[in-house]
Order: sequence, then C-alpha cells, then structure tokens
Amino acid sequence: MKLIKKLTLENDDLIIVWQDGKQSQLFSHWLRDHCQMPVSRNENNGQRLFSIIDIRKDLYIEEVTQDSEGNVCILFQPENHLSVFSQDWLRKNCYDLNNHFDDRSEKNKKLWQKNTFNDGVPKISYNYFHQNIEGKLQVLCSIRDMGFCIIKDAPTKEGQVLAVIKELGFTRETNYGKLFEVRTEVNPNNLAYTNMGLGSHTDNPYRDPVPTVQLLHCLESSTEGGDSVLVDGFNAAKILRQESSDNFLTLTKNWINFRFKDEETDLRSRVPMIEVNDNNEVIKVRYNNRSIDTINLPAVKIRSFYSAYRHWGEVIERDQLKITFQLLPGEIILFDNTRVMHARTAFSKKGKRHLQGAYADLDGLYSLLNILQSKQ
Amino acid sequence: MKLIKKLTLENDDLIIVWQDGKQSQLFSHWLRDHCQMPVSRNENNGQRLFSIIDIRKDLYIEEVTQDSEGNVCILFQPENHLSVFSQDWLRKNCYDLNNHFDDRSEKNKKLWQKNTFNDGVPKISYNYFHQNIEGKLQVLCSIRDMGFCIIKDAPTKEGQVLAVIKELGFTRETNYGKLFEVRTEVNPNNLAYTNMGLGSHTDNPYRDPVPTVQLLHCLESSTEGGDSVLVDGFNAAKILRQESSDNFLTLTKNWINFRFKDEETDLRSRVPMIEVNDNNEVIKVRYNNRSIDTINLPAVKIRSFYSAYRHWGEVIERDQLKITFQLLPGEIILFDNTRVMHARTAFSKKGKRHLQGAYADLDGLYSLLNILQSKQ
Repeated sequence: MKLIKKLTLENDDLIIVWQDGKQSQLFSHWLRDHCQMPVSRNENNGQRLFSIIDIRKDLYIEEVTQDSEGNVCILFQPENHLSVFSQDWLRKNCYDLNNHFDDRSEKNKKLWQKNTFNDGVPKISYNYFHQNIEGKLQVLCSIRDMGFCIIKDAPTKEGQVLAVIKELGFTRETNYGKLFEVRTEVNPNNLAYTNMGLGSHTDNPYRDPVPTVQLLHCLESSTEGGDSVLVDGFNAAKILRQESSDNFLTLTKNWINFRFKDEETDLRSRVPMIEVNDNNEVIKVRYNNRSIDTINLPAVKIRSFYSAYRHWGEVIERDQLKITFQLLPGEIILFDNTRVMHARTAFSKKGKRHLQGAYADLDGLYSLLNILQSKQ
Repeated sequence: MKLIKKLTLENDDLIIVWQDGKQSQLFSHWLRDHCQMPVSRNENNGQRLFSIIDIRKDLYIEEVTQDSEGNVCILFQPENHLSVFSQDWLRKNCYDLNNHFDDRSEKNKKLWQKNTFNDGVPKISYNYFHQNIEGKLQVLCSIRDMGFCIIKDAPTKEGQVLAVIKELGFTRETNYGKLFEVRTEVNPNNLAYTNMGLGSHTDNPYRDPVPTVQLLHCLESSTEGGDSVLVDGFNAAKILRQESSDNFLTLTKNWINFRFKDEETDLRSRVPMIEVNDNNEVIKVRYNNRSIDTINLPAVKIRSFYSAYRHWGEVIERDQLKITFQLLPGEIILFDNTRVMHARTAFSKKGKRHLQGAYADLDGLYSLLNILQSKQ
C-alpha cells in the first residue's frame, strides 16, 4: 500500500508527507538509531546490535529514495550506511504521529466508583478462565483496565491461588511466604491476621519493589461481617487533584517512609503516596495507615503535608468511591496493588473466615495479555 | 537520662529546648499521629490502629507536662486524649533534628570507579558467608554500599545460585525461569546467550517492576575472553550531572519505552533511564541499548534527548569507570541491578563458558541486613 506522498530532506531531518495529508519530520539520529537492517538488529530476537555511541556525531542523510516496493531507503554519511524502512514501520513508529505505549498510566485505565457497578460487580467463572484463552483475556483485560477481577466457582482447595498465578505469570515470594493465610491468629505479626476491620489500603508499601498484583482466595466464610471493600486509587487521586491540585502536588513531591517490623523482618521504604510519570499522569498509589513510619519532612512542609494527607485519606474513605461485597467461598479476587485499595469490615469471632493470599507482578500478566492479544 | 531542658506551647506547636541547646518545634497533628500509646498502636506489632481522618481537624494541645520519669505527656483536646512520649523517642524521631531513612539514594552509597579498586576487587569466601553472620553482613553491606559483592570458592554445582539467594532473601521468578543458563545457544532469544560481547547494561529494563538484584555464578570458564565488567551507574549519573545538568535533567524528565519480545513473552515498560527521588537524588538507573523500544517523545524534545542519551552512553563506557575481571569457576557475583551496570567482553567459540544466573530483590536483602545489624 502506498502511504507516502513525498519525501524531502531539510537540514538533518527527513520530511515525510503522508497520503492522508499528515506530515512527519524525523531527526536523522533517531532514524539511524532505529535502523531495522540485519546489521543493526539481530534477526532472531530483534535486539539492537549497536549502542548510541556507535552512531557518529557528524551523521547526516545524504540521500533518501523509495525502492520499487515503496520502502524508504536512507543513505547515511559519513559512514555510508544504508537503512531501508518499510512505509508501514515508519508510519507506526514515527514519534510525531503515534502515542507512546503505556499500560500503567491513569489515562489508559477505566476509572470507576461505586455506581459504576450498580448492576453488580462482574465475575468470571473459574472454568471459563481455566479452559479458554478468551477467559484468560477477560481476566487480564479486567485487571489492566479496571484494576481488578473476581473469579467465581474456583475449587476451594488450599494452594489454589498459586495455581491461578501459574496460569498468568509468576508468584512473588516474600517474608509472608509464597502463600499466606488470612485468618484470625494468636499474637499476629500483622493486623490482617485478626478479626479487626482494616481501612482501605494498598499492601506492602514498605516493600520496594512493591508487589504489583495481589490475590485473595476465599476458602471459608461463615462469620458475620468481613465484607470486602475496593476503591479505585487512580480515581481517588483524580478527585484529589480536581479538588486541590496543591494537595495532589504535595503528595507526589513529598515522599515518606513506610516500615514493617517483626522478629525476623525489617522492611523499610521511602516512596510517594502518589507517583506520577513524566507527563504528570498517575502511575502508582500507596496508602496504608498501619505501616506509615515516622513522617520525616522538612519542618516547613509539615503543615501542608498533613493537609494533603488528610484530604487524600478523606477522599479514599468516601462511600461513593467504595464497592462492597462478600467474597464467597470459591471466589478469588485479583487486583493491581499499585492502583486498587482494599479494605475489609470487622467480623465476628463466631464462625470461620479463611482466605489464602499471594502476590504476583504485573509484568508477567501484561506480557501474557500482549501475547494473547497479538494472536487474536 | 534527661534530654529535655524546657517545654512550651506555641499555637499548635510543641517547642522543645533540648539539653544540648538544640530546639524542636513539632506540629500538634504530627504528634497526635505518632502517638505511641496502646490505644494508638498494636502492642504486638507496632502497627498504627487509626487513620489520619480519625484525628480531629480542630485538634489542639491543651497541656504539656513531664512525668516523674521525664516522659512528655501531651493532652490533646477536644478529644481529651493523652499521649505519653519518651524523651528518647521524641529526640530520635522529631523531624527537625533527624534525617529520614533512605537505603536507595545515591547520597547513602559509596560511589566508585576503576581506581577505587587499584588493589583488586575484594572477594568474600563462600564458607565465611555461609557459616557466619559476619560473613552475611559483609556481603549485604557490600551490596548496599558498593552495589555489588563477589563470593569466591562456592561449590560449582548447578543451582548453587538459588541456594545463595535462599540465605539472603527470595528469588524473583521470571519468564527466564527461577534460574537461567548463560551460555552459547543456537537461535537464542536473547543476545546474552551468544558469545558476543555485551555493552554495559542493566538487566530487564523492559520489566516493571525490574528485578533489583542479579546473581551470576560461574560454573565453567575455559574460553578466551568473556571478562566481566562492572560500572557504578550512580557514579556515572553523578558525572553526567556534573558535566551537564541539562542532560541529566533531560534523562530524568523524558521517559522511554523498553521492550523484550519472543514467541511467548512480550514485556513492555515506560520508565526513565535515570530516576530521582523527591530530593533530586538518584535512586535507580537503567541502560540497555539492546532493548530500548522505539523512542517516542514530543518532536520538540527529540534533539535534546539524543544529546543527553549520547552523553550518558559515553560516560558509561569510559574506561576509568569500569572494573574488569574474570569471573572464575566457583565465583558468584551479586549486584544491585538498579545501580550497577554489567558488561562482558566477547569470547572464543573454543572452550566452554557456563554461568547460571538468577534474580532476587533488594527488599529481602535489606530486611535481613537491618535485622542482623540490630542484633549486633
């Protein structure tokens, strides 16, 4: 297909006028750096075979032509190097007509709140997930777009949560084990292992790198209470920013310490509660009142920090942001721990509540998602 | 011990004049938030039992006194809440006299270059590491402070690298497995599995979260070449900043995509090559010419990005920054993959070179380090 109307050179740029009237202006060094020839890229794995410092500083384009198939042939001097680009590659990769890839930014997520799920929280059946690529894709897309997914009717056998991770990616083992039991314990090292209610939080903010995916599998639930609560932390951050860009900025710019300590473990981090990328888009949130360590900021910033922190905590606890449901035996919730906060209501000492939890990471899940989508 | 000379109240601050003449001025809300009483903190695990929004907005300190043991007793109103702080806790935690904890920042590292190791690169014997807490501490401190450590005289048996991780933390399993073989392969999915030289790089910048620790264990080495090279990426970033603060800023402010793709895996990230914290201190670096994906930045930034990228690549490849050595059979190198870049020289097809590699994470290692240090 003919995509290009006209090619010209202007100083050290290649100007492309596209058939649809759009125009690109591409820097010679960028073109040379992205050379797709066998001498530049390994043919098996596509990896680049040279480094930025192998490109001559005095590089320039001597000539640009199109071959009989319409490929763009660029002759670089003084090294006398020929790069041939397909029109298609140039159109899909030129930096002035394409968005960069980003599967972590808030701008590529579907933000939600309570009334998004007025018709109930969607659940995917375990068999559909387990036996079908479409089922896996639904689970993965739900985690990427909504930040969570609930699988129902899974076997209520111990260790099931690890089997689910194995279908999607890899377990992140921590001091809590490959798998951890969430039930009432005597002398717990973590309040999660009591019957107390837990406010909305992300897990392990004291761990760097933080586990990016959490799973909770309900094996037994016969207590009063113990409901599960989820909050879209990216939506909470968006609301905070709308209500006070100063408070939002304060939380991105003033990092704090988190800490978890027991007999055998002493985990410490220094991280922001709201993390943004170079375009000021939210990519990670953290919130956990239980494990914030001593807040140590310059004295001059303490008051504004506490205003922002209170505002953030207040937004997170708004009812209209929360979805509340009972996780039933055989249900597994998977969520993006860099985005979705979870909570639980207190539960009775009568009856049993037994969940098994585990951590995994988004890289493995998104890799599988990319592969499955490319095969569709 | 008497640490405090005088206590006064000023608006919503507590003013402490310390015996050594220093002075603290602590915000009422910060004090209430850090209450150490059993009603505020779980006695077993120290976790905070309330949230920031449980603190009244109209909080104020009605009275401050010292009890017979010198503890500081603060009566908060209108909730009529008494917090008792030890003098020692206040001195060690007050935000105006203490530095925050940070084990990732460049400012808490010992930066190095080639001539730092004129007397040779230090190695710790496997038995000393394996059998002694002091040996483990040496390994862990070396990784924290220098970014790497070499263990010598380890058993040359397969899987040894995983046994070493087990003594320090947890393995990060990835698409490459729990353990990966570094040797020449037919049709490799990664250039690491050829006899090519590899320029200085960090591993897996296309993975988010990136593995923060890498281990390489030499089982066999009878080729010509195949030397190991290390570069302190934090030192390289410091030099870049000294030579051009503009170029440094460009790399922190313009994030790029990395990608790794084979038949079964498609890992994509969008991250900065130099990552700084809220105090503009370097906390992570990434560099890998092989796996940088299409560079997609606003057209107006492309030229300045390429200048900065070239400068960064050029600093990293300076001889005076590199230490070069042959990893011998039985030697295991452990390094902080968020700081130290590694490279290898090309090697002959004659002879055998077989390394086993694995990834782990800093959180587990630093936790053990904190625990072992606290017991000394």
